[in-house]
Amino acid sequence: MAKVNVYVTLKPALLDAQGKVVQGALENLGFDSIESVRMGKFIEIEVNGGNGTLEQDVDEMCRKLLANPNIENYRYEIVKDGE
Amino acid sequence: MAKVNVYVTLKPALLDAQGKVVQGALENLGFDSIESVRMGKFIEIEVNGGNGTLEQDVDEMCRKLLANPNIENYRYEIVKDGE
Repeated sequence: MAKVNVYVTLKPALLDAQGKVVQGALENLGFDSIESVRMGKFIEIEVNGGNGTLEQDVDEMCRKLLANPNIENYRYEIVKDGE
Repeated sequence: MAKVNVYVTLKPALLDAQGKVVQGALENLGFDSIESVRMGKFIEIEVNGGNGTLEQDVDEMCRKLLANPNIENYRYEIVKDGE
């Protein structure tokens, strides 16, 4: 079994409204030296019987579903490779 | 400036409804060997003038705001330490 971690983040040029709200909330809690907060997604996928196309498959999953390529970047790492 | 990555994940014992929906959508796209999908949050925080208490501060941020300790686990890594 292969395990893949996918990280989806908003493109840096775009305003992260949710991150701004979290930053404000942290400042209200007394954390006043925060420069920025950006919220992204962390997706853990387990794939049965990893085959040779795992990396292409994951890239395709990201492009077709997990990330919105217009406004988001993604990266992934295969943390446990199947045999 | 310090940069911290925070990962918030649903506790393993709990059903991840959003992950199940994503898994179904991936299966509809033809990825039929997926064992599980779990959705988490990936939060990037930049802190000005990191001081000696950065690690405690980030832990407090997670406990007080970023994660719901009843149902979520969190971990963090300081990827760039302030001076």
